[in-house]
Amino acid sequence: MKLKVVTSDGKTGARTGGPSTRHLLREAAIELFMAKGYDGVSVAEIARSADAFPNQVTHHFGSKEALFVEAASRAVLRSAKQAELRTRDSKSNEDHTRKLISYLLGPGSPAVMMFAEAMLMARRKADLQEIIRETVAELHVAGEAAMVDTLMRTGWRVRTTPDIITRGFWSAIFGLALEKAALGERFEYSTAEAVALMMINLKGNFSDPRG
Amino acid sequence: MKLKVVTSDGKTGARTGGPSTRHLLREAAIELFMAKGYDGVSVAEIARSADAFPNQVTHHFGSKEALFVEAASRAVLRSAKQAELRTRDSKSNEDHTRKLISYLLGPGSPAVMMFAEAMLMARRKADLQEIIRETVAELHVAGEAAMVDTLMRTGWRVRTTPDIITRGFWSAIFGLALEKAALGERFEYSTAEAVALMMINLKGNFSDPRG
Repeated sequence: MKLKVVTSDGKTGARTGGPSTRHLLREAAIELFMAKGYDGVSVAEIARSADAFPNQVTHHFGSKEALFVEAASRAVLRSAKQAELRTRDSKSNEDHTRKLISYLLGPGSPAVMMFAEAMLMARRKADLQEIIRETVAELHVAGEAAMVDTLMRTGWRVRTTPDIITRGFWSAIFGLALEKAALGERFEYSTAEAVALMMINLKGNFSDPRG
Repeated sequence: MKLKVVTSDGKTGARTGGPSTRHLLREAAIELFMAKGYDGVSVAEIARSADAFPNQVTHHFGSKEALFVEAASRAVLRSAKQAELRTRDSKSNEDHTRKLISYLLGPGSPAVMMFAEAMLMARRKADLQEIIRETVAELHVAGEAAMVDTLMRTGWRVRTTPDIITRGFWSAIFGLALEKAALGERFEYSTAEAVALMMINLKGNFSDPRG
Protein backbone atom coordinates (compact mmCIF):
# COMPACT_ATOMS: atom_id res chain seq x y z
CA MET A 1 0.00 0.00 0.00
CA LYS A 2 1.31 3.45 -0.94
CA LEU A 3 1.46 6.19 1.67
CA LYS A 4 -0.19 9.50 0.99
CA VAL A 5 2.03 11.98 2.77
CA VAL A 6 2.06 15.72 2.28
CA THR A 7 5.23 17.08 3.77
CA SER A 8 5.56 20.64 4.92
CA ASP A 9 8.54 21.11 2.58
CA GLY A 10 6.78 19.53 -0.38
CA LYS A 11 8.63 21.89 -2.69
CA THR A 12 11.77 19.79 -2.44
CA GLY A 13 9.74 16.65 -2.79
CA ALA A 14 11.31 15.18 0.34
CA ARG A 15 9.27 12.33 1.82
CA THR A 16 10.44 9.82 4.32
CA GLY A 17 11.20 6.30 3.14
CA GLY A 18 10.24 6.34 -0.54
CA PRO A 19 10.21 8.20 -3.79
CA SER A 20 9.11 11.83 -3.50
CA THR A 21 5.63 12.94 -4.54
CA ARG A 22 7.26 14.97 -7.29
CA HIS A 23 8.93 11.82 -8.62
CA LEU A 24 5.72 9.77 -8.42
CA LEU A 25 3.72 12.48 -10.17
CA ARG A 26 6.25 12.70 -12.99
CA GLU A 27 6.34 8.92 -13.46
CA ALA A 28 2.53 8.74 -13.52
CA ALA A 29 2.49 11.63 -15.99
CA ILE A 30 4.96 9.90 -18.34
CA GLU A 31 2.88 6.72 -18.38
CA LEU A 32 -0.51 8.39 -18.80
CA PHE A 33 0.48 11.11 -21.29
CA MET A 34 2.33 8.56 -23.41
CA ALA A 35 -0.73 6.30 -23.53
CA LYS A 36 -3.45 8.91 -24.01
CA GLY A 37 -1.87 12.16 -25.19
CA TYR A 38 -1.93 15.59 -23.56
CA ASP A 39 -5.65 16.26 -23.99
CA GLY A 40 -6.62 12.72 -22.98
CA VAL A 41 -5.32 13.00 -19.43
CA SER A 42 -6.48 15.21 -16.59
CA VAL A 43 -4.43 16.51 -13.69
CA ALA A 44 -6.83 14.70 -11.35
CA GLU A 45 -6.11 11.39 -13.09
CA ILE A 46 -2.34 11.86 -12.79
CA ALA A 47 -2.66 12.78 -9.13
CA ARG A 48 -4.87 9.75 -8.46
CA SER A 49 -2.41 7.44 -10.17
CA ALA A 50 0.45 8.87 -8.06
CA ASP A 51 -1.65 8.62 -4.90
CA ALA A 52 -1.47 12.39 -4.51
CA PHE A 53 -3.80 15.39 -4.55
CA PRO A 54 -4.41 17.46 -7.70
CA ASN A 55 -3.11 20.62 -6.02
CA GLN A 56 0.24 18.86 -5.55
CA VAL A 57 0.68 18.99 -9.34
CA THR A 58 0.40 22.77 -9.21
CA HIS A 59 2.62 22.87 -6.17
CA HIS A 60 5.43 20.79 -7.68
CA PHE A 61 5.23 21.72 -11.38
CA GLY A 62 3.19 24.92 -11.64
CA SER A 63 0.87 23.73 -14.40
CA LYS A 64 -0.28 20.73 -16.43
CA GLU A 65 1.81 22.04 -19.35
CA ALA A 66 4.95 22.26 -17.24
CA LEU A 67 4.36 18.73 -15.94
CA PHE A 68 3.94 17.52 -19.53
CA VAL A 69 7.20 19.18 -20.61
CA GLU A 70 9.07 17.71 -17.63
CA ALA A 71 7.60 14.25 -18.29
CA ALA A 72 8.45 14.47 -22.01
CA SER A 73 12.00 15.58 -21.23
CA ARG A 74 12.58 12.69 -18.87
CA ALA A 75 11.02 10.25 -21.35
CA VAL A 76 13.17 11.34 -24.31
CA LEU A 77 16.37 11.22 -22.24
CA ARG A 78 15.50 7.65 -21.22
CA SER A 79 14.78 6.70 -24.82
CA ALA A 80 18.11 8.13 -25.91
CA LYS A 81 19.84 6.10 -23.20
CA GLN A 82 18.03 2.94 -24.32
CA ALA A 83 18.95 3.63 -27.95
CA GLU A 84 22.58 3.90 -26.90
CA LEU A 85 22.54 0.70 -24.83
CA ARG A 86 20.83 -1.33 -27.57
CA THR A 87 23.26 -0.28 -30.31
CA ARG A 88 26.49 -0.70 -28.36
CA ASP A 89 27.33 -4.05 -29.92
CA SER A 90 26.88 -2.86 -33.53
CA LYS A 91 29.36 -4.45 -35.91
CA SER A 92 29.65 -1.56 -38.33
CA ASN A 93 28.89 2.10 -38.65
CA GLU A 94 25.99 1.35 -41.05
CA ASP A 95 24.52 -1.18 -38.63
CA HIS A 96 24.92 1.24 -35.72
CA THR A 97 23.21 4.16 -37.47
CA ARG A 98 20.30 2.06 -38.74
CA LYS A 99 19.76 0.50 -35.30
CA LEU A 100 19.75 3.90 -33.61
CA ILE A 101 17.17 5.29 -36.04
CA SER A 102 15.04 2.12 -35.89
CA TYR A 103 14.92 2.26 -32.13
CA LEU A 104 14.05 5.97 -31.99
CA LEU A 105 11.34 5.66 -34.66
CA GLY A 106 10.12 2.33 -33.24
CA PRO A 107 10.00 1.48 -29.52
CA GLY A 108 11.44 4.90 -28.62
CA SER A 109 9.08 6.93 -30.78
CA PRO A 110 6.32 7.65 -28.23
CA ALA A 111 8.90 9.44 -26.09
CA VAL A 112 10.42 11.30 -29.05
CA MET A 113 6.96 12.38 -30.20
CA MET A 114 6.01 13.47 -26.71
CA PHE A 115 9.11 15.65 -26.65
CA ALA A 116 8.29 17.07 -30.11
CA GLU A 117 4.88 18.04 -28.76
CA ALA A 118 6.51 19.57 -25.68
CA MET A 119 8.74 21.63 -27.97
CA LEU A 120 5.69 23.07 -29.75
CA MET A 121 4.08 23.73 -26.38
CA ALA A 122 7.11 25.66 -25.13
CA ARG A 123 6.91 28.34 -27.79
CA ARG A 124 6.91 31.80 -26.23
CA LYS A 125 6.87 30.41 -22.68
CA ALA A 126 10.16 31.18 -20.98
CA ASP A 127 9.83 28.73 -18.08
CA LEU A 128 9.02 25.81 -20.39
CA GLN A 129 11.76 26.82 -22.83
CA GLU A 130 14.31 26.49 -20.07
CA ILE A 131 13.38 22.81 -19.47
CA ILE A 132 13.54 22.13 -23.23
CA ARG A 133 16.91 23.86 -23.50
CA GLU A 134 18.39 21.79 -20.67
CA THR A 135 17.04 18.58 -22.19
CA VAL A 136 18.34 19.30 -25.69
CA ALA A 137 21.73 20.18 -24.17
CA GLU A 138 21.70 16.87 -22.24
CA LEU A 139 20.80 14.94 -25.41
CA HIS A 140 23.71 16.57 -27.22
CA VAL A 141 26.21 15.95 -24.41
CA ALA A 142 25.13 12.33 -23.92
CA GLY A 143 25.09 11.66 -27.67
CA GLU A 144 28.52 13.17 -28.14
CA ALA A 145 29.97 11.16 -25.25
CA ALA A 146 28.46 7.92 -26.60
CA MET A 147 29.83 8.67 -30.03
CA VAL A 148 33.35 9.43 -28.83
CA ASP A 149 33.18 6.18 -26.88
CA THR A 150 32.09 4.23 -29.97
CA LEU A 151 34.77 5.81 -32.14
CA MET A 152 37.50 4.99 -29.63
CA ARG A 153 36.28 1.41 -29.31
CA THR A 154 35.89 0.73 -33.03
CA GLY A 155 38.35 3.03 -34.71
CA TRP A 156 35.64 4.16 -37.15
CA ARG A 157 36.53 7.39 -38.92
CA VAL A 158 34.22 10.40 -39.21
CA ARG A 159 34.16 13.32 -41.61
CA THR A 160 33.34 15.95 -39.02
CA THR A 161 33.22 16.36 -35.22
CA PRO A 162 31.02 14.19 -32.95
CA ASP A 163 29.41 17.41 -31.70
CA ILE A 164 28.21 18.33 -35.20
CA ILE A 165 27.08 14.79 -35.99
CA THR A 166 25.12 14.57 -32.73
CA ARG A 167 23.37 17.92 -33.23
CA GLY A 168 22.50 17.11 -36.84
CA PHE A 169 21.34 13.64 -35.84
CA TRP A 170 18.86 14.89 -33.24
CA SER A 171 17.43 17.57 -35.56
CA ALA A 172 16.85 14.91 -38.21
CA ILE A 173 15.32 12.51 -35.63
CA PHE A 174 12.87 15.17 -34.38
CA GLY A 175 11.86 15.87 -37.98
CA LEU A 176 11.50 12.17 -38.82
CA ALA A 177 9.44 11.50 -35.71
CA LEU A 178 7.13 14.37 -36.65
CA GLU A 179 6.69 13.04 -40.19
CA LYS A 180 6.11 9.51 -38.95
CA ALA A 181 3.54 10.62 -36.39
CA ALA A 182 1.75 12.75 -38.97
CA LEU A 183 1.69 10.15 -41.70
CA GLY A 184 1.03 7.02 -39.67
CA GLU A 185 0.92 4.04 -42.01
CA ARG A 186 1.52 6.38 -44.94
CA PHE A 187 5.03 7.21 -43.66
CA GLU A 188 7.61 6.25 -46.28
CA TYR A 189 10.55 4.43 -44.80
CA SER A 190 12.72 5.74 -47.62
CA THR A 191 12.75 9.01 -45.65
CA ALA A 192 14.19 7.27 -42.58
CA GLU A 193 16.63 5.47 -44.85
CA ALA A 194 17.61 8.84 -46.35
CA VAL A 195 18.53 10.14 -42.90
CA ALA A 196 20.41 6.91 -42.17
CA LEU A 197 22.40 7.31 -45.40
CA MET A 198 23.11 10.96 -44.57
CA MET A 199 24.52 9.95 -41.20
CA ILE A 200 26.40 6.95 -42.59
CA ASN A 201 27.96 9.17 -45.22
CA LEU A 202 29.14 11.52 -42.48
CA LYS A 203 30.35 8.79 -40.19
CA GLY A 204 31.68 6.56 -42.97
CA ASN A 205 34.82 4.58 -42.10
CA PHE A 206 36.46 5.09 -45.48
CA SER A 207 39.54 7.12 -46.21
CA ASP A 208 38.71 10.77 -46.52
CA PRO A 209 40.60 12.57 -49.30
CA ARG A 210 41.10 15.51 -46.97
CA GLY A 211 41.98 13.44 -43.90
CA MET B 1 -15.90 46.11 -52.32
CA LYS B 2 -15.86 42.32 -52.15
CA LEU B 3 -18.93 40.34 -53.14
CA LYS B 4 -20.42 37.91 -50.68
CA VAL B 5 -21.81 35.20 -52.92
CA VAL B 6 -22.84 31.72 -51.85
CA THR B 7 -23.03 29.59 -54.95
CA SER B 8 -25.14 26.48 -55.11
CA ASP B 9 -22.08 24.46 -56.06
CA GLY B 10 -19.96 25.97 -53.31
CA LYS B 11 -18.21 22.62 -52.89
CA THR B 12 -16.11 23.27 -55.99
CA GLY B 13 -15.51 26.81 -54.87
CA ALA B 14 -16.74 28.19 -58.20
CA ARG B 15 -17.74 31.84 -58.07
CA THR B 16 -18.18 34.14 -61.01
CA GLY B 17 -15.50 36.72 -61.72
CA GLY B 18 -13.04 36.35 -58.85
CA PRO B 19 -11.20 34.02 -56.53
CA SER B 20 -13.38 31.28 -55.03
CA THR B 21 -14.63 31.45 -51.46
CA ARG B 22 -12.51 28.41 -50.73
CA HIS B 23 -9.43 30.25 -51.96
CA LEU B 24 -10.26 33.42 -50.00
CA LEU B 25 -10.88 31.42 -46.81
CA ARG B 26 -7.57 29.62 -47.16
CA GLU B 27 -5.66 32.84 -47.76
CA ALA B 28 -7.30 34.52 -44.77
CA ALA B 29 -6.51 31.43 -42.68
CA ILE B 30 -2.83 31.48 -43.68
CA GLU B 31 -2.49 35.12 -42.70
CA LEU B 32 -4.40 34.91 -39.41
CA PHE B 33 -3.05 31.55 -38.18
CA MET B 34 0.51 32.62 -38.98
CA ALA B 35 0.08 35.84 -37.01
CA LYS B 36 -1.83 34.52 -34.00
CA GLY B 37 -1.47 30.73 -33.86
CA TYR B 38 -4.16 28.05 -34.00
CA ASP B 39 -5.80 28.85 -30.67
CA GLY B 40 -5.63 32.59 -31.23
CA VAL B 41 -7.94 32.60 -34.24
CA SER B 42 -11.64 31.71 -34.46
CA VAL B 43 -13.49 30.34 -37.47
CA ALA B 44 -15.74 33.42 -37.32
CA GLU B 45 -12.70 35.70 -37.59
CA ILE B 46 -11.37 33.84 -40.65
CA ALA B 47 -14.79 33.94 -42.32
CA ARG B 48 -15.13 37.67 -41.59
CA SER B 49 -11.72 38.38 -43.06
CA ALA B 50 -12.64 36.41 -46.22
CA ASP B 51 -16.02 38.15 -46.44
CA ALA B 52 -17.74 34.79 -45.97
CA PHE B 53 -19.97 33.05 -43.43
CA PRO B 54 -18.59 30.76 -40.70
CA ASN B 55 -20.58 27.79 -42.01
CA GLN B 56 -18.71 28.11 -45.31
CA VAL B 57 -15.54 27.00 -43.47
CA THR B 58 -17.29 23.80 -42.49
CA HIS B 59 -18.70 23.47 -45.98
CA HIS B 60 -15.37 23.86 -47.79
CA PHE B 61 -12.92 22.33 -45.31
CA GLY B 62 -14.92 20.24 -42.86
CA SER B 63 -13.36 21.64 -39.69
CA LYS B 64 -11.08 24.34 -38.28
CA GLU B 65 -8.33 21.69 -37.96
CA ALA B 66 -8.63 20.70 -41.63
CA LEU B 67 -8.52 24.37 -42.66
CA PHE B 68 -5.40 24.83 -40.53
CA VAL B 69 -3.71 21.81 -42.13
CA GLU B 70 -4.59 23.02 -45.64
CA ALA B 71 -3.38 26.54 -44.86
CA ALA B 72 -0.13 25.22 -43.34
CA SER B 73 0.45 22.98 -46.36
CA ARG B 74 0.01 25.82 -48.81
CA ALA B 75 2.22 28.09 -46.67
CA VAL B 76 5.13 25.62 -46.43
CA LEU B 77 5.02 24.90 -50.18
CA ARG B 78 5.24 28.63 -50.85
CA SER B 79 8.13 29.02 -48.42
CA ALA B 80 9.96 26.16 -50.14
CA LYS B 81 9.45 27.86 -53.48
CA GLN B 82 10.75 31.17 -52.09
CA ALA B 83 13.76 29.40 -50.60
CA GLU B 84 14.53 27.93 -54.01
CA LEU B 85 14.14 31.26 -55.85
CA ARG B 86 16.31 33.14 -53.36
CA THR B 87 19.20 30.67 -53.49
CA ARG B 88 19.34 30.18 -57.25
CA ASP B 89 22.29 32.49 -57.72
CA SER B 90 24.46 30.85 -55.05
CA LYS B 91 28.12 30.76 -55.97
CA SER B 92 29.02 27.53 -54.21
CA ASN B 93 27.45 24.49 -52.64
CA GLU B 94 28.30 25.81 -49.15
CA ASP B 95 26.72 29.17 -49.90
CA HIS B 96 23.64 27.48 -51.39
CA THR B 97 23.06 25.19 -48.39
CA ARG B 98 23.54 27.95 -45.83
CA LYS B 99 21.20 30.29 -47.71
CA LEU B 100 18.49 27.61 -47.92
CA ILE B 101 18.67 26.89 -44.20
CA SER B 102 18.83 30.61 -43.28
CA TYR B 103 15.73 31.32 -45.31
CA LEU B 104 13.74 28.41 -43.90
CA LEU B 105 14.74 29.19 -40.30
CA GLY B 106 14.37 32.95 -40.89
CA PRO B 107 11.71 34.55 -43.10
CA GLY B 108 10.30 31.12 -43.98
CA SER B 109 10.10 29.79 -40.44
CA PRO B 110 6.51 30.81 -39.57
CA ALA B 111 5.31 28.63 -42.46
CA VAL B 112 7.61 25.74 -41.56
CA MET B 113 6.47 25.90 -37.92
CA MET B 114 2.84 26.06 -38.94
CA PHE B 115 3.36 22.90 -40.96
CA ALA B 116 5.16 21.22 -38.03
CA GLU B 117 2.12 22.02 -35.88
CA ALA B 118 -0.18 20.66 -38.61
CA MET B 119 1.84 17.43 -38.61
CA LEU B 120 1.26 17.00 -34.88
CA MET B 121 -2.43 17.77 -35.37
CA ALA B 122 -2.77 15.11 -38.08
CA ARG B 123 -1.83 12.22 -35.81
CA ARG B 124 -4.43 9.48 -35.98
CA LYS B 125 -6.72 11.50 -38.28
CA ALA B 126 -6.85 9.86 -41.70
CA ASP B 127 -8.31 12.82 -43.63
CA LEU B 128 -5.69 15.24 -42.28
CA GLN B 129 -2.90 12.69 -42.84
CA GLU B 130 -3.76 12.58 -46.51
CA ILE B 131 -3.19 16.35 -46.90
CA ILE B 132 0.13 16.09 -45.03
CA ARG B 133 1.21 13.13 -47.16
CA GLU B 134 0.51 15.01 -50.40
CA THR B 135 2.35 18.09 -49.15
CA VAL B 136 5.43 16.16 -48.02
CA ALA B 137 5.46 14.36 -51.38
CA GLU B 138 5.24 17.73 -53.18
CA LEU B 139 8.10 19.13 -51.08
CA HIS B 140 10.22 16.11 -51.99
CA VAL B 141 9.41 16.28 -55.71
CA ALA B 142 9.97 20.05 -55.92
CA GLY B 143 13.19 19.85 -53.88
CA GLU B 144 14.56 17.04 -55.99
CA ALA B 145 13.75 18.87 -59.24
CA ALA B 146 15.40 22.07 -57.96
CA MET B 147 18.45 20.11 -56.91
CA VAL B 148 18.85 18.29 -60.22
CA ASP B 149 18.52 21.68 -61.90
CA THR B 150 21.24 23.19 -59.69
CA LEU B 151 23.57 20.23 -60.22
CA MET B 152 23.20 20.41 -64.00
CA ARG B 153 23.80 24.15 -63.97
CA THR B 154 26.82 24.12 -61.67
CA GLY B 155 28.37 20.73 -62.18
CA TRP B 156 28.60 20.28 -58.37
CA ARG B 157 29.14 16.67 -57.35
CA VAL B 158 27.06 14.84 -54.73
CA ARG B 159 27.76 11.74 -52.69
CA THR B 160 24.28 10.27 -52.96
CA THR B 161 21.06 10.80 -54.94
CA PRO B 162 19.11 14.09 -54.98
CA ASP B 163 16.08 12.15 -53.73
CA ILE B 164 17.93 11.05 -50.58
CA ILE B 165 19.44 14.47 -50.01
CA THR B 166 16.04 16.16 -50.36
CA ARG B 167 14.29 13.77 -47.97
CA GLY B 168 17.07 14.05 -45.40
CA PHE B 169 17.11 17.82 -45.80
CA TRP B 170 13.40 18.26 -45.06
CA SER B 171 13.51 15.96 -42.02
CA ALA B 172 16.39 17.99 -40.62
CA ILE B 173 14.60 21.28 -41.41
CA PHE B 174 11.42 20.16 -39.62
CA GLY B 175 13.50 19.17 -36.60
CA LEU B 176 15.48 22.41 -36.63
CA ALA B 177 12.33 24.51 -36.93
CA LEU B 178 10.87 22.67 -33.94
CA GLU B 179 13.99 23.27 -31.87
CA LYS B 180 14.15 26.93 -32.88
CA ALA B 181 10.47 27.49 -32.07
CA ALA B 182 10.84 25.76 -28.72
CA LEU B 183 14.01 27.51 -27.67
CA GLY B 184 13.35 31.01 -29.00
CA GLU B 185 16.34 33.21 -28.19
CA ARG B 186 17.99 30.25 -26.50
CA PHE B 187 18.28 28.36 -29.81
CA GLU B 188 21.93 27.64 -30.55
CA TYR B 189 22.86 28.41 -34.12
CA SER B 190 25.57 25.78 -33.93
CA THR B 191 22.72 23.28 -34.39
CA ALA B 192 21.65 24.90 -37.66
CA GLU B 193 25.30 25.05 -38.66
CA ALA B 194 25.61 21.32 -37.85
CA VAL B 195 22.78 20.55 -40.27
CA ALA B 196 24.38 22.83 -42.88
CA LEU B 197 27.69 20.99 -42.51
CA MET B 198 25.91 17.61 -42.77
CA MET B 199 24.30 18.67 -46.03
CA ILE B 200 27.48 20.30 -47.35
CA ASN B 201 29.39 17.13 -46.60
CA LEU B 202 26.85 15.15 -48.62
CA LYS B 203 26.70 17.61 -51.46
CA GLY B 204 30.41 18.51 -51.38
CA ASN B 205 32.01 19.16 -54.74
CA PHE B 206 35.26 17.39 -53.90
CA SER B 207 36.52 14.18 -55.39
CA ASP B 208 34.92 11.18 -53.74
CA PRO B 209 37.32 8.25 -53.30
CA ARG B 210 34.55 5.93 -54.47
CA GLY B 211 33.41 8.16 -57.37
